Amino acid sequence: MTDFSVSEFEARLIRAQAAMTVEGFDALFLNTEAEFRYFTGFRSLFWQSPTRPWFVIVPQSGELTVVIPSIGTDLMQRMWVNDIRTWPSPRGEDEGVSLLIEALGAFDRIGVPMGEESSLRMSLTDFRAVEASIKGRFTDCSHLIKTLRTKKSEAEINLHREICRIGSNAFARLPDVANAGDPLADVFRKFKITLLEEGAEEVPYLVGGAGRGGYHDVISPPGRTPILDGDVVMLDTGSTLQGYFCDFDRNFAVGTALPEAQVAHQKLWDVTQAGIESARPGVTCAELFVAMSKILGGTSDIGRIGHGLGMQLTEWPSIAAHDQTELKAGMVMTLEPSLMIDEKRMMVVEENILITDGAPELLTKRVSRDLVVI
Amino acid sequence: MTDFSVSEFEARLIRAQAAMTVEGFDALFLNTEAEFRYFTGFRSLFWQSPTRPWFVIVPQSGELTVVIPSIGTDLMQRMWVNDIRTWPSPRGEDEGVSLLIEALGAFDRIGVPMGEESSLRMSLTDFRAVEASIKGRFTDCSHLIKTLRTKKSEAEINLHREICRIGSNAFARLPDVANAGDPLADVFRKFKITLLEEGAEEVPYLVGGAGRGGYHDVISPPGRTPILDGDVVMLDTGSTLQGYFCDFDRNFAVGTALPEAQVAHQKLWDVTQAGIESARPGVTCAELFVAMSKILGGTSDIGRIGHGLGMQLTEWPSIAAHDQTELKAGMVMTLEPSLMIDEKRMMVVEENILITDGAPELLTKRVSRDLVVI
Repeated sequence: MTDFSVSEFEARLIRAQAAMTVEGFDALFLNTEAEFRYFTGFRSLFWQSPTRPWFVIVPQSGELTVVIPSIGTDLMQRMWVNDIRTWPSPRGEDEGVSLLIEALGAFDRIGVPMGEESSLRMSLTDFRAVEASIKGRFTDCSHLIKTLRTKKSEAEINLHREICRIGSNAFARLPDVANAGDPLADVFRKFKITLLEEGAEEVPYLVGGAGRGGYHDVISPPGRTPILDGDVVMLDTGSTLQGYFCDFDRNFAVGTALPEAQVAHQKLWDVTQAGIESARPGVTCAELFVAMSKILGGTSDIGRIGHGLGMQLTEWPSIAAHDQTELKAGMVMTLEPSLMIDEKRMMVVEENILITDGAPELLTKRVSRDLVVI
Repeated sequence: MTDFSVSEFEARLIRAQAAMTVEGFDALFLNTEAEFRYFTGFRSLFWQSPTRPWFVIVPQSGELTVVIPSIGTDLMQRMWVNDIRTWPSPRGEDEGVSLLIEALGAFDRIGVPMGEESSLRMSLTDFRAVEASIKGRFTDCSHLIKTLRTKKSEAEINLHREICRIGSNAFARLPDVANAGDPLADVFRKFKITLLEEGAEEVPYLVGGAGRGGYHDVISPPGRTPILDGDVVMLDTGSTLQGYFCDFDRNFAVGTALPEAQVAHQKLWDVTQAGIESARPGVTCAELFVAMSKILGGTSDIGRIGHGLGMQLTEWPSIAAHDQTELKAGMVMTLEPSLMIDEKRMMVVEENILITDGAPELLTKRVSRDLVVI
């Protein structure tokens, strides 16, 4: 039933416990979807509901303990976890708190992700109640979790390969499904259907934009304005297979590729090419940022030009001036340089790559240097 | 550009500020997607990325302040918010913290949702840094937020009506798209496409199950096992329109409705009918739970048999023994009684209703008492 063999989860636990030993954590206390799934294998869209919290405790030695709502018992029993403690949630009072206090009672130094990109998927009131009732203390373990999750296993990489292939195939069909005169919202809807037809399991993320020769932002939902001759239409999808993401975009010129759009696209292609050529193990994200920025010239204030990818649409690290993370074989990354064509119009081009011991493996089908015209 | 007129947001702010005055909050400090969208109108799938935090401050009088990554500036400028403070995120250090300290500096008693169903969508480290640097103190405001969001406006209700209509139309087409012998995962994929074709904008949630005469859980992703004669197939979708959810399911018998499945479905239909008849303003959720449980007999340990619905798949309150929330006109609710057919098999039937001054309005097309056979 799990998405991976038990050996995948055993390997994750062994790596985690080795790192915990080095960093002096007696246990990890995790309550966010990606971390919970990473260790237990439990994958469910039920996390969409904010009502019930879910917890996993990773001890420095021995097996996982999960503390979960009883509605999850059946699915969890099909995972590899043996120590399953449940309560009938929601029950208003004590949403797992007393079970957590008991389960965490033996540990002193307990890792909780508290650093950048982390969040707390339980109420602050309950978190503080647990913290106040245990003898141990909560300490930030963001770095440890980051280090574990950025290096993908072969099984994870295969899912990335497959969902990137599916996304590439869907984009290849876009000229057949989108037509001049279509409202952008209809293009989005048809493209989502295309992604599902090509084999995507979920399409949690589809954003984009359209405008004459460029678009004004990259995170908006689509409107009803029709796409017109001279427009550039950009679609950016995070689709998933067994909970693993692709995250890349494609730009299409409607009818005519305006010169300024063509020039921007070619430049971004060249920037990406520089990124592909520079993305080698041992290079830092900051160095990769510089290598790409040299071709790009200037900066945008989007803050970064690529990031990690995995069980979340974006993961550590960031390809940004501040990020000193070293690239390592097994990291899956996006390269997504963007530029302002003028004050009102921008363009983004994105590819997904796997860092290897040599040249990176391109997971997406490389976009052509010239804009595709639809 | 916003999903609603400015008057909708003005009304929300006025209601919030009136409640803040009564409850003695000088400001609210909100960082979660639904709350951020509720006040600002800012809707973006970009929240899928955990990298960047987003903040809105609601003062007891005067206008909203947002503290957001600069990547959101363009979209936010198309909302109704005037005071937009940005930083180029991600930048590693100071992800909005210094801007927050400045923006919150004037306030003493600052509401932060800390109670049941809440979460913290920023790092604990940054939250604590802000808390330690301001003169004011953070105090739980869950109840205030709950009271605001449970009562839907006419504009919100219309979105619920429309997405429930879309979902009902999609379910009506299921007998044409699903066939005996289809792997359950394919049924899911085809049904997602059907939902999109019928007008759903997003399908963030589709879970379900299949099995001879019943299924074993209701939160699993689908497997490749084919659906067979005698199986009951259940699909439960949370689809959205402009970010507002439906949340209901339908059960179908493949080829033959087994007697135990038919009996279970009829019983759950009757339980829902009792719920519809009892769901009146002034009735508490606990009383509604009792009225439905009387017909249901026994209990399950899923913890509740319905809940609020809105910008999230599940919202306060819960139709559960512990929830003393009074129903009020304008609440949108699900009724979802479930029962165990035997130790291994269960069934759930779900409808969505609007609480009115009289009988509730059924938002979903009421399922037939007998199982539909496909």
